[in-house]
Amino acid sequence: MVEMESWSWPPRYDASYKPPPDSRYWFPRRETMPQAERERAIVQRLREVCHYAYEKSPFYRQKWDQAGFHPDQVKSLEDFEQKCPVIAKADLRMAQERHPPFGDYLCIPDSEVFHIHGTSGTTGRPTAFGISAADWNNIANAHARIMWGFGIRPGDTVFLAAILSLYLGSWGALAGAERMGCKAFPFGAGAPGMTSRAVQWLNQMKPEALYGTPSYALFVAETARKEGLNPADFGIKYLFFSGEPGASVPGVRDRIEEAFKGKVFDCGSMAEVTPFMNVAGSAQTSGMLCWQDIVYTEVCDPKKFDRVPYGERGTPVYTHLERTSQPMIRLVSGDLTQWTNDPNPCGRTYPRLPNGIFGRIDDMFTIRGENVYPSEIDAALNKVAGYGGEHRIVISRSGIMDELMIRVEPTPALEKEGAAALTKFKETVTKNIHTMLGLRAGVEVVAAGFYPRTDFKARRVIDDRDVFREMNQKLAAERSQ
Amino acid sequence: MVEMESWSWPPRYDASYKPPPDSRYWFPRRETMPQAERERAIVQRLREVCHYAYEKSPFYRQKWDQAGFHPDQVKSLEDFEQKCPVIAKADLRMAQERHPPFGDYLCIPDSEVFHIHGTSGTTGRPTAFGISAADWNNIANAHARIMWGFGIRPGDTVFLAAILSLYLGSWGALAGAERMGCKAFPFGAGAPGMTSRAVQWLNQMKPEALYGTPSYALFVAETARKEGLNPADFGIKYLFFSGEPGASVPGVRDRIEEAFKGKVFDCGSMAEVTPFMNVAGSAQTSGMLCWQDIVYTEVCDPKKFDRVPYGERGTPVYTHLERTSQPMIRLVSGDLTQWTNDPNPCGRTYPRLPNGIFGRIDDMFTIRGENVYPSEIDAALNKVAGYGGEHRIVISRSGIMDELMIRVEPTPALEKEGAAALTKFKETVTKNIHTMLGLRAGVEVVAAGFYPRTDFKARRVIDDRDVFREMNQKLAAERSQ
Repeated sequence: MVEMESWSWPPRYDASYKPPPDSRYWFPRRETMPQAERERAIVQRLREVCHYAYEKSPFYRQKWDQAGFHPDQVKSLEDFEQKCPVIAKADLRMAQERHPPFGDYLCIPDSEVFHIHGTSGTTGRPTAFGISAADWNNIANAHARIMWGFGIRPGDTVFLAAILSLYLGSWGALAGAERMGCKAFPFGAGAPGMTSRAVQWLNQMKPEALYGTPSYALFVAETARKEGLNPADFGIKYLFFSGEPGASVPGVRDRIEEAFKGKVFDCGSMAEVTPFMNVAGSAQTSGMLCWQDIVYTEVCDPKKFDRVPYGERGTPVYTHLERTSQPMIRLVSGDLTQWTNDPNPCGRTYPRLPNGIFGRIDDMFTIRGENVYPSEIDAALNKVAGYGGEHRIVISRSGIMDELMIRVEPTPALEKEGAAALTKFKETVTKNIHTMLGLRAGVEVVAAGFYPRTDFKARRVIDDRDVFREMNQKLAAERSQ
Repeated sequence: MVEMESWSWPPRYDASYKPPPDSRYWFPRRETMPQAERERAIVQRLREVCHYAYEKSPFYRQKWDQAGFHPDQVKSLEDFEQKCPVIAKADLRMAQERHPPFGDYLCIPDSEVFHIHGTSGTTGRPTAFGISAADWNNIANAHARIMWGFGIRPGDTVFLAAILSLYLGSWGALAGAERMGCKAFPFGAGAPGMTSRAVQWLNQMKPEALYGTPSYALFVAETARKEGLNPADFGIKYLFFSGEPGASVPGVRDRIEEAFKGKVFDCGSMAEVTPFMNVAGSAQTSGMLCWQDIVYTEVCDPKKFDRVPYGERGTPVYTHLERTSQPMIRLVSGDLTQWTNDPNPCGRTYPRLPNGIFGRIDDMFTIRGENVYPSEIDAALNKVAGYGGEHRIVISRSGIMDELMIRVEPTPALEKEGAAALTKFKETVTKNIHTMLGLRAGVEVVAAGFYPRTDFKARRVIDDRDVFREMNQKLAAERSQ
């Protein structure tokens, strides 16, 4: 058996290693080996990771003791999947409340934490990530390897257009760019006026690669055009995204590729799972490959957390194979995806998420009995000529029926064509939504540029049903007095 | 002669080196050696740096050839200072216009650039910094060494409260914290809502050290109090600042130390000169030491650029001794300072800027024949009890006399005391300004919290004189028609 490159526990990477520039793969063996062989190595690694966590972390030890699971039991993937209990983000938050600041799943001495990041914590207590220098290095190596798969090469300029703060997306992309030997340009995002300046710098520096969220890339393109610049002239060849679905949604992807004349790559699992590019596309393969030798991914039934067969939908459950500070072992993402195991055009022998991650299990809303994912509406709109790039989904219930209203922006060009063109646009949108969702939605065309653009994750769903319900109940109560 | 630690060209630092935790110095020899000995080493290094730049950079070669300077001529500090011409920021900007993107003072192949940062470029073309991995490492080592001098130690949490983007301040502090083995928390700043969240994280993580600008630290303290938290409870022991004057201004420093109950350190020369902590205070020494073996600093006459004697005022002129990508050689800062060479309480044998950097040569304004620096007004106000922390300086000319008006915020507490207290406050301010500046200024007390707080560099001077002049000319012209 040929050795897998840099395959050790704890992970140890050679900081000077780089593949030949014309190599398609960073680690040819690890990326293209027969799946069964890789899985044998993963089983052994899972046992090692579990032993490590059992020894270092009261959090895992207690949870596993209670569940009757012991690392020695891991003799197959099925053993691991059936015996090791899943964990959820809420478990991590509670562990940090009990054992501040990093929780009792921190497997290194507190003093060895190298970087602190965290969740944005818009609801409830935020969660702190404590990442060791060794892990930062492992993350950098994994990301460089995956970015190599996009086609990015040493010396390329990588422009990071996402906020540099708690959010790990931009930091992970930065670490990968640094490790590969790129010119890393950590521009960031989020402060007033930054998008205009980003456009000027993109124009001045002509980077080969851009990282951000899909919504923000479209906003950057729009801002460029407003300032009289053509985003295609920036010469960006690789646009890679995380933070929200979209880069795998054909309509969105096509709009970005059309604007920048570069190739779009979807990537990103969860901040907790960093190296989050563990699911990512490659130059020859669209959607997202599951880089199983970095993070072991199971796509699971969202209730029972059993792995679903290839071809089916489910929620990804992730296990770190190369992290030692806060290793995640069977962390439920709550995302929604579908996976396949067909051969990949790039030759990598990984399972694939052909449509990326296209929703949240808890984002899904049910309207008149139909399950609807916001990303499906986004995809439908992006296929309509004249769509201006922003919309809102308003769910309301005024009587007994849920009402779905979609407010859509046209392009400025379409708006100028006048009322007849807008009416036709509205009809097309209505028809497409009906075809895709199997239900009728009200469509309202708002003014071009009506909605504020986001420099982060777009939030487009407004569920007014609770409000209506509360109001109706209040009115009913008042009337009965 | 004892060897100076890690003293080589090009610089080579041992990544694993750390002094014993109880050592006052990172490099005892380099920091405390007799000045004359260090200067002999610096002369040799200056010759090496100049030879390197002459060979690698058309920018320097052409400039020096024209000026009749050759690196071989550097046999003493005086040779260097008298024969090597100064450069200005405008020279760098023009060099980048002619040779985009990094200018012909980039001394490494473009592909070896590791990080790109830049000036914010609010006026004119921004300047790009292209920094090699070797230089990033040198910067990190220099900053770790200087932060050690503050008292920061491995394992301490360092909270970075300044935007992570083009601005090198936060990145330099981050690199130093990473190199020292601190827990680096690159929180950033600048996006809406971030200050509130910063306060929550400071409260949750209790960092040992905080980095930012002095104005922003005061804003963070104010925000904390508004949210019912006492900034002293964050337990911050070291607060270090760059980006604007203030941390050496007794009034400002005292207000920050009073709010956080930690010790304030002033540091920071220029982004171009990074490792910008080359001028910085230490645990035992206030003001700023000139760490001459990292960046050679001359305080010069602002017109002739001759070094001024110790004790006098002038503008710092900086020369990199440990940078190889875009080395700055005799870069004029345009800042204003005063230097001394008295023994330092910390035992380091460096010259010192006892009052830090207290203005810009070009910020200085002349009013009725008197030279006034905004930082002097800031200092005067900060000494007055009841000062609310913000003010504006308005210079106008309605007739033939320049008028100076200072609009000052009281504290909310003083405001509540009522009209008599405010009148007394106004009188004290008027008297203090008169005493310090030797001229009368109008003082207007505005409402507490009237001016927006900044999360970056405060801009407080409004010069209305040109506006008035233009308007008067226009009116005169209209009348004569």
